[in-house]
Amino acid sequence: MSEHILELPAHEAARRMREGAIAVPDYAEAIQAQVAVAEELTGALAYFDPAHLAAQAERAQDGHRRGAPQGALHGLPVAVSDIFDTQDLPTGDGTRLHEGRTPRADAMAVALLRSAGALVLGKTRVSELGIGAAPETRNPGRPDVAPGFGSPGAAAAVAAGMAPLGLGSQTESGVIGPASRCGIHGFKPSHGTISRRGMLLLSDDLDQPGVFARHIADIALIAGALGGFDPDDAATRPVARAPLFEVAMSEPPLPPRLAFVPTPYWERLGETSRAAIEELVEALEGQIERLDLPAGCAEAERLLGLLAETDAALALAGEPAEGLSPALAARLARGRSHGAFDYARARRFAASLAPALDEAFFAYEAFLAPASAGPEGEGAEDAAFSAIWTLCGLPCVTLPLLQDERGRPIGVQLIGARGNDARLLRTARWLATRSFD
Amino acid sequence: MSEHILELPAHEAARRMREGAIAVPDYAEAIQAQVAVAEELTGALAYFDPAHLAAQAERAQDGHRRGAPQGALHGLPVAVSDIFDTQDLPTGDGTRLHEGRTPRADAMAVALLRSAGALVLGKTRVSELGIGAAPETRNPGRPDVAPGFGSPGAAAAVAAGMAPLGLGSQTESGVIGPASRCGIHGFKPSHGTISRRGMLLLSDDLDQPGVFARHIADIALIAGALGGFDPDDAATRPVARAPLFEVAMSEPPLPPRLAFVPTPYWERLGETSRAAIEELVEALEGQIERLDLPAGCAEAERLLGLLAETDAALALAGEPAEGLSPALAARLARGRSHGAFDYARARRFAASLAPALDEAFFAYEAFLAPASAGPEGEGAEDAAFSAIWTLCGLPCVTLPLLQDERGRPIGVQLIGARGNDARLLRTARWLATRSFD
Repeated sequence: MSEHILELPAHEAARRMREGAIAVPDYAEAIQAQVAVAEELTGALAYFDPAHLAAQAERAQDGHRRGAPQGALHGLPVAVSDIFDTQDLPTGDGTRLHEGRTPRADAMAVALLRSAGALVLGKTRVSELGIGAAPETRNPGRPDVAPGFGSPGAAAAVAAGMAPLGLGSQTESGVIGPASRCGIHGFKPSHGTISRRGMLLLSDDLDQPGVFARHIADIALIAGALGGFDPDDAATRPVARAPLFEVAMSEPPLPPRLAFVPTPYWERLGETSRAAIEELVEALEGQIERLDLPAGCAEAERLLGLLAETDAALALAGEPAEGLSPALAARLARGRSHGAFDYARARRFAASLAPALDEAFFAYEAFLAPASAGPEGEGAEDAAFSAIWTLCGLPCVTLPLLQDERGRPIGVQLIGARGNDARLLRTARWLATRSFD
Repeated sequence: MSEHILELPAHEAARRMREGAIAVPDYAEAIQAQVAVAEELTGALAYFDPAHLAAQAERAQDGHRRGAPQGALHGLPVAVSDIFDTQDLPTGDGTRLHEGRTPRADAMAVALLRSAGALVLGKTRVSELGIGAAPETRNPGRPDVAPGFGSPGAAAAVAAGMAPLGLGSQTESGVIGPASRCGIHGFKPSHGTISRRGMLLLSDDLDQPGVFARHIADIALIAGALGGFDPDDAATRPVARAPLFEVAMSEPPLPPRLAFVPTPYWERLGETSRAAIEELVEALEGQIERLDLPAGCAEAERLLGLLAETDAALALAGEPAEGLSPALAARLARGRSHGAFDYARARRFAASLAPALDEAFFAYEAFLAPASAGPEGEGAEDAAFSAIWTLCGLPCVTLPLLQDERGRPIGVQLIGARGNDARLLRTARWLATRSFD
């Protein structure tokens, strides 16, 4: 029974819980059993309390019994990266410096998850202070592929079936990188879609929350619950939004046209990754064209690092140096050494490239590009494959469509027009459900 | 006759021109006569063609004859700083490098002036490339007080009666400084109020167009014609705006409460300026309280210079070094030498101070502060007195309420809550029309 319900897509499980066909405590119990099995292998969790999960499930079931309104995420436990404040669980930010910190309020994204009926599974491991050393989390399917930097705990937890959904954050490649490495779906919406209030803040220009799921429809489900205006986060906007789940589940009005964008970092991919992606591009013949980015884009990785390190050095200036890993201390020291002229140039690069790319999205529904350095590459190299999109704040989703000869996952990234996240997810679902023969 | 009509406030002159009591060509002719008298003294104009002004006046009069709709600025010549593109006049940006440059389109601000019925008087002198050496413009009333940096030509032209209205720009203190030195009103609206499309761009964070007039009501008149959303300037917002002129002309519902904010730069003012401002504060007893800013504000001048120099170095990177004045070359060299950490800190300082000041504007209608280094101080020191407000993007207006014992003007600056420009101008008009005995 427990195995069965965990195999349901999250939107289907939530529907059955709303309809009473599955009791929320039963679903939570199945999750708990899976955590008991998988956590030792993955080390995904920074904080987990079975009683706390059970209590949330009971409350949700109580509400159901009383006929209270049920949200789109009713009864679904979410793996929450440990840089999002939670009022009922400690939030340690991936550093012993913040161990046992107990925030007074939920981060906006966590509050929105709860409003939609979700439970908080627990807190999942993140890079030290979001940007330093990777945690000791292992990739459940492939212990030989490290899950990378940023929010690897949430990605590993979702990949291991410990939660149907996850919440993470991308300052460099923290969502797309781990999702791609763990062989699941990861989605970083347009900059300013999800409020960052109550999240560990590193860079106003770069920090972008994102989500994880094993099914593309579930990506749309959780992301749809998270977008919205927050007067406390100036990057968010009070604008109307397309219903993400409904649009993502609909058929494209015309067969989508894609651009294959190898990016200036293509040659740094392993041979197997390149071959696999090239094969996919061939299979899409007639619907895909190669698009080369302006030459300046080769600088994106360097400029992203420069902005991230400088902003993080400022954001973390109050942290005692003796509590930092040598790797993070070195990054923050670099963050204090960059030049303002280069910093301003990096910001202008991002601001001017984004509108230039808008043009391309009149011709193409989405760009198709590598999602990470792949199973042959190091997690530290993932940033190159997210750099352009993170800098420009474009929505990106990674799909676990490919594998190498050893069965290790190779993510395929789709990138959409800024602000048109719904269209991107519709295209992603179209690609994910297409059969290639 | 000509003397008489130039003494009218601009809004009154425009009204009479709309009603047919004054012919636009007659007004333009009076202006032209005044230019002939005053330009030799002031050197305010970078480009002026009497025939071009006369032709615009004839066209306006033709429209009037045909019963075409007339705008709020009907028939009023505006002194336009020579960093705003004009499609029918060269735009030289205060440098011989751009001499004779003929833009294809009007800057958005210039287009809006024309839409409101204004004529372009001509182009007025600006600092070299907006941020370098001051032009050889002299202060018409007081040849012993240099009109300062930024848009001194427009300020001097308005002070000399060569135009009833002026358009300028403030990256450091370019509107408030010259207005205060020339003994007229200057107004820099909230950041993002007036579009900067077609203006020489130095710094997205700092550049803020502003206006000049001899009467506070005329400040509201011209500023009211200039605010609005422009999809090409991401700092502007599609929001509803209070009718600036109507609100500015109305009585405050309650006697305004002011905060006297000496700023951390108070001691750098000359003794006479300090004494004059202190006397004004005393005359306002019961309606004004002293407010000291957070200690960090003492850094504002340095941080403003750091941002302005860095951004300008990037914006002007394409200008050949041999065409720059030694002063500007030195500024741009400094702009390439600042640290990114300090740059990011300066931006964060501005972003965090603005909301902190919002609180104070619940208690006070406006802050009262020095407008510039005063007649005893150098123009180069004016930036200190605008630094905090320019950094935070707050609306500021300078009023020519005071003089030193030699009759030299001492500006009084009022600063308002970001976005509430109408309330600031209403308070300014209240203060300007109050009699102190």
